[in-house]
Amino acid sequence: MGVLQNTQIVLASRPVADIDPKAAFRTQKVSLSDELGPGEFLVKVLYVSLDPAMRGWMRDVRSYIRPVQIDEVMRSSDVAQVIKSNNKDYRVGELVRASCGWQEYQVLKPSEDVVKIKIFPGISPSSYLGVLGLTGLTAYFGMFEVGEIAAKGGPNCTVVVSGAAGATGSVAAQIAKHVFGCRVIGIAGSDDKCEYLVKELGLDVGLNYKSKTFFKDLCAATPKLIDIFFDNTGGDILDCCLRRIAFKGRIVVCGAISTYNDVVPKGPAYYSALITQRARMEGFIVFDYAKKYGKALEDMSNWIKEGKLKTRETVIHGLENAPEALVKLFKGENTGKMLVKVAEETTASRL
Amino acid sequence: MGVLQNTQIVLASRPVADIDPKAAFRTQKVSLSDELGPGEFLVKVLYVSLDPAMRGWMRDVRSYIRPVQIDEVMRSSDVAQVIKSNNKDYRVGELVRASCGWQEYQVLKPSEDVVKIKIFPGISPSSYLGVLGLTGLTAYFGMFEVGEIAAKGGPNCTVVVSGAAGATGSVAAQIAKHVFGCRVIGIAGSDDKCEYLVKELGLDVGLNYKSKTFFKDLCAATPKLIDIFFDNTGGDILDCCLRRIAFKGRIVVCGAISTYNDVVPKGPAYYSALITQRARMEGFIVFDYAKKYGKALEDMSNWIKEGKLKTRETVIHGLENAPEALVKLFKGENTGKMLVKVAEETTASRL
Repeated sequence: MGVLQNTQIVLASRPVADIDPKAAFRTQKVSLSDELGPGEFLVKVLYVSLDPAMRGWMRDVRSYIRPVQIDEVMRSSDVAQVIKSNNKDYRVGELVRASCGWQEYQVLKPSEDVVKIKIFPGISPSSYLGVLGLTGLTAYFGMFEVGEIAAKGGPNCTVVVSGAAGATGSVAAQIAKHVFGCRVIGIAGSDDKCEYLVKELGLDVGLNYKSKTFFKDLCAATPKLIDIFFDNTGGDILDCCLRRIAFKGRIVVCGAISTYNDVVPKGPAYYSALITQRARMEGFIVFDYAKKYGKALEDMSNWIKEGKLKTRETVIHGLENAPEALVKLFKGENTGKMLVKVAEETTASRL
Repeated sequence: MGVLQNTQIVLASRPVADIDPKAAFRTQKVSLSDELGPGEFLVKVLYVSLDPAMRGWMRDVRSYIRPVQIDEVMRSSDVAQVIKSNNKDYRVGELVRASCGWQEYQVLKPSEDVVKIKIFPGISPSSYLGVLGLTGLTAYFGMFEVGEIAAKGGPNCTVVVSGAAGATGSVAAQIAKHVFGCRVIGIAGSDDKCEYLVKELGLDVGLNYKSKTFFKDLCAATPKLIDIFFDNTGGDILDCCLRRIAFKGRIVVCGAISTYNDVVPKGPAYYSALITQRARMEGFIVFDYAKKYGKALEDMSNWIKEGKLKTRETVIHGLENAPEALVKLFKGENTGKMLVKVAEETTASRL
């Protein structure tokens, strides 16, 4: 039996507006006994997922999940490796996805929240926080269940995705483009990202929302208006897309990252286009589709193999940099999935 | 053959924000020959309907119907009486509903837009602009098709209606209460109206949105949150209801009268509740359900006879007062349907 020094980052105070990482979080070292009860196993965290939804978890309001409490380890979805085990189903060296949060080690028991990672060629463990994690599943179910792309998709269907260079947006946009053959316009925050959307991901158009001619460009790119708008950002982009929404158009409200730091966000001024265009705006949470994850992951794995789904990651090194990395996510400094690498995977030969 | 002096009110300029009735409209007298072509008939307008949607028609933007043009007679739905006819299906003395607009006379031909009014006991001709007109149909299809009340309704279903003392809201609220037995909270702009909602229409609660304790009162009235919000007003009321929306709740976006005079309206700041509560916000236009009008009017006529649907009208006398009456509608000075009475019906004995 031994005792580990476990570094944790806890929520120190609730930010009112923008996150000040020094005020919002506190690092602490605690002792963790590696003594395991029946069925338990000890993991070390390899990757921490950073997600826009985290801003909501820091807020003390009614939501789909209880808020992170003050002095509690910041919640996150992680990829972790089993380093000691009292459970024959979770052997030393194996990888799991679990909500360990922002810390180095955790003792786990089997639960719905702990998912074993299947390793197959060409797919990195960190993919299980991205395209094969909740991020990718969010894109999948948003497009299928809320956007109803299986019924609406095709060459006559115009799809616009905001945050299109981000982890969820890039998957949503590629499903619309390469699985359903829609006309797909991706919106992002830099010319480099827009180039990535078109040249790398194969979208029809990439639009920089920071451009002065953004709304004009959006109009030019959507001559037949917008049938499905998959929105990750909210704010002015949502308003622009409401002004271009088609008859019976769908707005998949996946996220609203541009507003998450606002005390009272600016709502979509043009929402009454929902009336004139008989359009629908609908939100969702990926957890509601848990029973369908298997089929979704099978589809997505196949699309990756077929080259229909490409992904990128922005990896920040060191758990201590997680607070700063979260701030960077809200500034849009990532392309694709934003991750913090906490530790190296221990390879089989060294176990 | 004769010539009639026909008073018309035309759109003189497009209001930018609040309607200044003197600037926005102009009255003119034109000569109208009563000579009729084949199948034509001459009507005199009895009642003009005033509707929040008119504000949108005055705006030169993409919408569900073309804008009223400058110098064109202001569009409205009217009840009119045939006073001369060249068509055996439209006899002198009969009543029709048609879009004659703000004028005294018009020569009509049969069209989809001209609907003969069936007279039956206890129902006034003006009802064909209210509960048995587009207003009532709007309430009906909003509740059934968008709110899906037939699937969701019942004693465990909490329904909130804004503009509940208005023409559409009062019908929507009574359908939820007396046809489906829901818990129904009506929102209106005065204590008198709230009393009317509870004592006269039989709703569970009437809430005055001008009260300082409105949000607190709404919370107290919706202990099980809001399953269906039928919204006629938008603005702060919409935000309050978003904050109380239930899991999988529906927001039927019928209108947004509180915002129609705004240059750039304030959007719903709390729309991200759509995400956390997996809720849906959807707009509609009654015209899309034209094929189902027959069944709807039969249902509504029955509910009137059974005492399940009660209505009130606010009648302003004189076509010349139509512009001021429209302004009053936006100030919420009406209870129930807002109408302008233009002329007396000529009774059979005098024809």
